[in-house]
Amino acid sequence: MYDTVIAGSGPAGLTAAIYAKRAGLDSLLIENTPVGGGQIATTDRVDNYPGLIGINGMDLGMKFREHAEKLGCEFKNGQVTDIVDNGASKTVKLQSGEEIETKTVILALGADHRQLGVPGENELRGKGVSYCATCDGAFFRGKDVAVVGGGDVALDDAIFLSRFAGHVYLIHRRDEFRGAKSLVDEAAAKENITFIYDTIVTKVDGENAVTGVETENKKTGEKSTIPVNGVFMAVGTQPNIAGITGLPETDEKGCIKAGEDCVTSISGIFAAGDVRTKQLRQVITAAADGANAVTSVQHYLKI
Amino acid sequence: MYDTVIAGSGPAGLTAAIYAKRAGLDSLLIENTPVGGGQIATTDRVDNYPGLIGINGMDLGMKFREHAEKLGCEFKNGQVTDIVDNGASKTVKLQSGEEIETKTVILALGADHRQLGVPGENELRGKGVSYCATCDGAFFRGKDVAVVGGGDVALDDAIFLSRFAGHVYLIHRRDEFRGAKSLVDEAAAKENITFIYDTIVTKVDGENAVTGVETENKKTGEKSTIPVNGVFMAVGTQPNIAGITGLPETDEKGCIKAGEDCVTSISGIFAAGDVRTKQLRQVITAAADGANAVTSVQHYLKI
Repeated sequence: MYDTVIAGSGPAGLTAAIYAKRAGLDSLLIENTPVGGGQIATTDRVDNYPGLIGINGMDLGMKFREHAEKLGCEFKNGQVTDIVDNGASKTVKLQSGEEIETKTVILALGADHRQLGVPGENELRGKGVSYCATCDGAFFRGKDVAVVGGGDVALDDAIFLSRFAGHVYLIHRRDEFRGAKSLVDEAAAKENITFIYDTIVTKVDGENAVTGVETENKKTGEKSTIPVNGVFMAVGTQPNIAGITGLPETDEKGCIKAGEDCVTSISGIFAAGDVRTKQLRQVITAAADGANAVTSVQHYLKI
Repeated sequence: MYDTVIAGSGPAGLTAAIYAKRAGLDSLLIENTPVGGGQIATTDRVDNYPGLIGINGMDLGMKFREHAEKLGCEFKNGQVTDIVDNGASKTVKLQSGEEIETKTVILALGADHRQLGVPGENELRGKGVSYCATCDGAFFRGKDVAVVGGGDVALDDAIFLSRFAGHVYLIHRRDEFRGAKSLVDEAAAKENITFIYDTIVTKVDGENAVTGVETENKKTGEKSTIPVNGVFMAVGTQPNIAGITGLPETDEKGCIKAGEDCVTSISGIFAAGDVRTKQLRQVITAAADGANAVTSVQHYLKI
C-alpha cells in the first residue's frame, strides 16, 4: 500500500515525486512510456523556467527526472485505465492487468496536442501533417510550411521552422495573436515568416504527401489554397484523460476540476499540472502544482 | 507610465519580471537592497527546486536574477512606502520621495523571519541570537547552540549547524515536527543534535553575549536552563509589509489576501509569492505566482 501513486512524468508528476520523497511518503510514479517527460520533451527551447534560461525542453525534462532519481524516487511503466475509490484506499488499475493499492493518487496526466479537425488532417498525419515542430521541422529543410494557431506554441513553432523551411505561413483565425508579444515581434522580424490573420484552414490537400492547405478568410469569405509541404498544428492542448475511468469531475474543456491545492471532487485524489483547470499552463506552474499536491496529500493523510 | 511595477526581487518578483519582459510589458522591478534575492539568498541549500538539485540559495537567486537581466529587465533600488490607487493608474511612492506612475503593481514583497518575542531576544540580537544559520553558523564552531522551531527551516538549520557546532539543541513547542520527514530523519541521525519536544523558550540569558536559554516544558511545567552560546530562531516568517500604506486587504497573519491568480482586493494590484495568503511557501510556488501575476496583469490590461 503506497502513500501516494503519481500518474504522469511531466514537470508536475516529477515535482510531486521529488516532494513526496522529501516528505518521506512511500510513493510510486507511473508513466506511459519509459522516460516520458510530458510535453516539454518535444519543446525546442524553454525560455521561461526561471534559473535555466534558454534550455532545450528535453534537457529540462531530464534535469527534473535526474533530480527525482537522485532522491531515490520509484518509477514504473504502465498505462492507467481505471482508478477505483475504495474510500480510505484507492486501486490504480493498469492496462497490463496489474492493480496497485494506494492511500492517495496524484493525477499529473498532462495534456496533449489538440487536433484541428479538418479533412485531410488524419489522412496526412506523418505525411506532412505534424503536431511537433521540434520533432519534425528538420524534415522540411528548404520547403514551404504552414503553422496553424495563435498562441505561444504557434509562434515558437514558426520561429523554429523559419530556420529550416523555405517560407513559413503562420495562419491564425483571429486578428491578433494570443502569444507573448516578444514572440510576435521575433516572428515578425523573420523575413521568411508571413502572418495570415482572420483565416481558418478548411482542408489539408494531398494524396500521399501534403501539397497545400485550403483556407478561408473569416472576414471577407475569400478562399485560397496555399501550396506547402508541411502543416504544423499548434491549436492548443487537451487533457490526457482519454481511456481512464474513475476520474474526478471535469470542466467543459475536459480538465479535472481542482484549485491551487489540487483537491478534486474525489477525496484522496489530487490533480496537478496541465490536466487540471487553471489559468496558466507552464512548466513553472505545473511544477508548483506538484509541490502543492503533495502538501495536500500530507494534509489528507495527516502526516 | 509603466505597464507594471514589481516590488521585490525574490523568486516571485524575478519570475514576474521575466514573464513581464517576455509579454512585452513595460515593467520595472523595485528592490530594497542592491541584488536582493529574497529569503533564498540566506538559505544554505535548496533541494526542492526541480532541475537544480542541491543548489545553494544565493546561487539559485543569482540564476533567477541573471535570467531576468539577460532578458533585459529593468531594476531600481528603493523602499516602497505607499501605493496610491488612482483607478486606472497607481502611484508607487518611494522613501526617497520619488514617485513612479504605473498601470498595475505586482507586490512580491516576500516574508521575513518572525521573532520569538521573549526577553533577551532583541537585546542579544547579533550577540548570539540569530535568524539565519547559514549566515552566522560558522561563528559557532565548536560551541553549543539552540535552534528554536519545528518546521523545515528549524530542521535544516539544526542539520547545518551540526557541522560546525559542538552540540545542537532543537527546541520545539509541540510533540512532533511539522517539517519534512526526510529532514527529521536526517537530523535524528546526527549524534550532536538533541530534540527537545513540548518545550518553549521563555528567555535568552546573557549580558553582552548569549550564555543560555531558559525553557519550560509545556506538559510537565518543568523549567530548565540550557547553556548555549547561540540561539537560532526558526519560528516562521511574516510578510514584509511593514511601513507600506495603501496595501490591499490582509488576512489574520498579515498576508495579502489573493488566490492563485494573485488578484487582490484592489483592482490592478496583484500579490505574488510569500507575501500572499497561500498553502505552501516554496521557491517553486513563489515563482509560479510571478508567472500567474503577469498573466493576470495581461488580463487586466486586456493585452
